[in-house]
Amino acid sequence: MLAAIAEAQLARQNNNYAIGAVIVIDGQIIARSPNITRTVNDPTYHAEIEVIRKAIKKTGDKFLEGAILYTTHEPCPMCATACVWARLKGVIYGADMKDMVDYSKKHGNKKWCWRTVQINAKEVFSKGYPKVEIIEGFMRNECLKLFHS
Amino acid sequence: MLAAIAEAQLARQNNNYAIGAVIVIDGQIIARSPNITRTVNDPTYHAEIEVIRKAIKKTGDKFLEGAILYTTHEPCPMCATACVWARLKGVIYGADMKDMVDYSKKHGNKKWCWRTVQINAKEVFSKGYPKVEIIEGFMRNECLKLFHS
Repeated sequence: MLAAIAEAQLARQNNNYAIGAVIVIDGQIIARSPNITRTVNDPTYHAEIEVIRKAIKKTGDKFLEGAILYTTHEPCPMCATACVWARLKGVIYGADMKDMVDYSKKHGNKKWCWRTVQINAKEVFSKGYPKVEIIEGFMRNECLKLFHS
Repeated sequence: MLAAIAEAQLARQNNNYAIGAVIVIDGQIIARSPNITRTVNDPTYHAEIEVIRKAIKKTGDKFLEGAILYTTHEPCPMCATACVWARLKGVIYGADMKDMVDYSKKHGNKKWCWRTVQINAKEVFSKGYPKVEIIEGFMRNECLKLFHS
């Protein structure tokens, strides 16, 4: 998760949402990505879908069976569904969507986004097949702090 | 929708899932994409997310307000959420997910995918903001026929 946090810091430095993700296979980080939506000028370039695409390109494997995605932020339904299609073994995330919005408002960070799809990653995985395991709230406070104003 | 069906036929010719999508702004088609998951060897390269990314690149606009996405197939939750992030005005699709699986089974098309996320596009849009309008079942039979064996 420290590597995902470093990616989120990189995202923030480049004026993107402070979200980062890495993919780990057999204990090795094989791909990293920050959120790059503002850099690319496209709201679909989230850290999670980008890191999945990078990992697939790097390994040459269409499916990332056995891989774990670490992300500082709960994946949106776009990214959570991409995890199912890529057959990830699991996702470990830091702060959840509600956490992040509450924290940003409280700390005067107006950059946080008013757009939303109110479906949690856990719900996507519970309705998806193959199954993706999930661990929520890992290093939550460290991930939340990325959204200070 | 005829242009989206042509993209789906292109996808099928290249051994991809027979799904195609186009984006229309002010009555003009501004981007087209077939499903290219097998070509790219990555299960996230769906026609819908690719056509959104192409349209954003082509127009230079981060948000596709006023745009309509035509797709031969109900968008999965990954693609439906991408429609919300891109602020599409609406989505018009042909065959829904259940239709497609039933038809493929009945017609001996074993290429149809056993992976799934059981959340309909309509549900994503109903829980998303900004709102994306949806028309379902447009030219349903023509779109279904793309999945013959």
